[in-house]
Amino acid sequence: MSKEINVAIVGATGVVGQEMARVLEQRNFPIKNIKFLASERSAGRRITFRRKGYLVEPLNKNSFKGVDIALFSAGSAVSKELSPIAAKAGCLVIDNSSAFRMDKEVPLIVPEVNPEKIAENKGIIANPNCSTVQMVVVLKPLHDFAQIKRIVVTTFQAVSGTGKDAVLELKGQLEAYCRHEEIKAHVYPHQIALNVLPHIDIFLPDGSTKEEEKMVKETQKILDSKIKVSATTVRVPVFVGHSESINIETAKKMTPDKARQLLSAADGVEIIDEPEESKYPMPVYSGGTDSCYVGRIRNDNSIENGLNLWVVADNLRKGAALNAVQIAELALRKNLV
Amino acid sequence: MSKEINVAIVGATGVVGQEMARVLEQRNFPIKNIKFLASERSAGRRITFRRKGYLVEPLNKNSFKGVDIALFSAGSAVSKELSPIAAKAGCLVIDNSSAFRMDKEVPLIVPEVNPEKIAENKGIIANPNCSTVQMVVVLKPLHDFAQIKRIVVTTFQAVSGTGKDAVLELKGQLEAYCRHEEIKAHVYPHQIALNVLPHIDIFLPDGSTKEEEKMVKETQKILDSKIKVSATTVRVPVFVGHSESINIETAKKMTPDKARQLLSAADGVEIIDEPEESKYPMPVYSGGTDSCYVGRIRNDNSIENGLNLWVVADNLRKGAALNAVQIAELALRKNLV
Repeated sequence: MSKEINVAIVGATGVVGQEMARVLEQRNFPIKNIKFLASERSAGRRITFRRKGYLVEPLNKNSFKGVDIALFSAGSAVSKELSPIAAKAGCLVIDNSSAFRMDKEVPLIVPEVNPEKIAENKGIIANPNCSTVQMVVVLKPLHDFAQIKRIVVTTFQAVSGTGKDAVLELKGQLEAYCRHEEIKAHVYPHQIALNVLPHIDIFLPDGSTKEEEKMVKETQKILDSKIKVSATTVRVPVFVGHSESINIETAKKMTPDKARQLLSAADGVEIIDEPEESKYPMPVYSGGTDSCYVGRIRNDNSIENGLNLWVVADNLRKGAALNAVQIAELALRKNLV
Repeated sequence: MSKEINVAIVGATGVVGQEMARVLEQRNFPIKNIKFLASERSAGRRITFRRKGYLVEPLNKNSFKGVDIALFSAGSAVSKELSPIAAKAGCLVIDNSSAFRMDKEVPLIVPEVNPEKIAENKGIIANPNCSTVQMVVVLKPLHDFAQIKRIVVTTFQAVSGTGKDAVLELKGQLEAYCRHEEIKAHVYPHQIALNVLPHIDIFLPDGSTKEEEKMVKETQKILDSKIKVSATTVRVPVFVGHSESINIETAKKMTPDKARQLLSAADGVEIIDEPEESKYPMPVYSGGTDSCYVGRIRNDNSIENGLNLWVVADNLRKGAALNAVQIAELALRKNLV
């Protein structure tokens, strides 16, 4: 890529915003100028990017003049307000919030899964929810071969998915435990250290959470609207790396060996599946890496065509920052900026 | 119960053995004499029971003379060797190991689910695996009403299920984390602090674990041999309390409200299901309690008759010690000792 472009990171001081900068550096993204934008509260902080110092600028309606691509990760409210303004200013918005994901006018892109949909964008491209991305990357080659009819998924999600405050909360609770002090909860409604919470995002009238609904609807939008999905999303005391226990039912028979063969040829997927050697994906080793790791691939004998899988990925990278930057790279390759 | 009997706890210094003593005390079990038995290594240690001091006695073939009920929790090898000897000596063995659970001659009992089977015992009664007990207690009333056809379950299991060494390992790893020291693993093949391990018990040739196989086969033996089960069992950094994400498919339609009604009338079950108030079962609050807690009861819209549930119980109590003592109480009530 010889063309160099102007990039902005919106929400540059958050956990995902910081990871976006790291991913842009590591992937040598062709940048002419870069801007780090954040709320008034965070403006003025210093960020080092490619050995150069930058000041975080306050985000406002005029932030997008001359910006070719803006990577948004500052929450739904900010995205709803400023993405359309940025798009109207000629900037391609890649939005990590849930604001536009289910909008019919907005493509929801995972480059390994549905890159062709990027052409449909009208200035905004949505980046899927972290727990959805890693699941569809792994399921795409299996669906192409065997046609997935139903998914039953239970997640084990890291606190970094909530943000910086949650990371500090878990750290503080572990320190309180070690000092034999009372464990206090602020970010989550209950302690997360030494606990698990079957509660991610808000609850909906049907008793599911918004996170569970996202996994259902986003999977259908990205992979195939005919796939049925049941999701249970759970927070666990892990800093980085979401894990997922995935059960699929397929129309066509697919052996675990066939699934391994398909997955070994898939982009963005790495198989770790030597259980007898205690080798399987785990969150603690996923931090800072780019792959969706899959293991524990085995028959589910409770139905005719069933398969179980265990999928782990760094939720801040493939689940957020990396996927957003990959969308930006795809846009460049397709001359959309 | 006016009759008082002689009881022995085999494996009295382990986490489950200690919990058995506590449960016998708390439930005021009618004991004439009690013996605490353990390996040579642990013999000679002091145990206080009902304000009286006892010495742990070394376990051997002659330990069971005059004992009416022996609660075994010293691993499969010990059970295999000594349970038949104890039974032959006229002692009723309630065995918490996996040694005899699938033996056709040995009933596998959860008092709320299949108490009638206790009559079939020939001197040994098996106590099911912790992760199975809490699941079948909750599913029994639902199965009676709607006939469960298939279960897809993913577990979040506490380290106390592994034993005392694992509890100390998690504690030590958390302390190492807080002191910024290297985290070392001995009991598990990888660190468990800040991680999750999709690996409980040994791996079988088909890629499942023995723990997963136990959940399948024990559920079929206890609840209904026609129920199909797919299980994924995962260790999480929690001290006490197993959590389970359970998805069921039933023959008959059952609404979440109907399920709540059935469960509210069920023995040993407590509903915590006010998600909008952040009320749902969690392991951190289950420790030392007797109920199987159930919440997050909601429709699974991916199939016609589907329901999702979230079940938590203290794995050392209902999952092990409490269920064993309840079996002993049942045996007393039925005049089997």
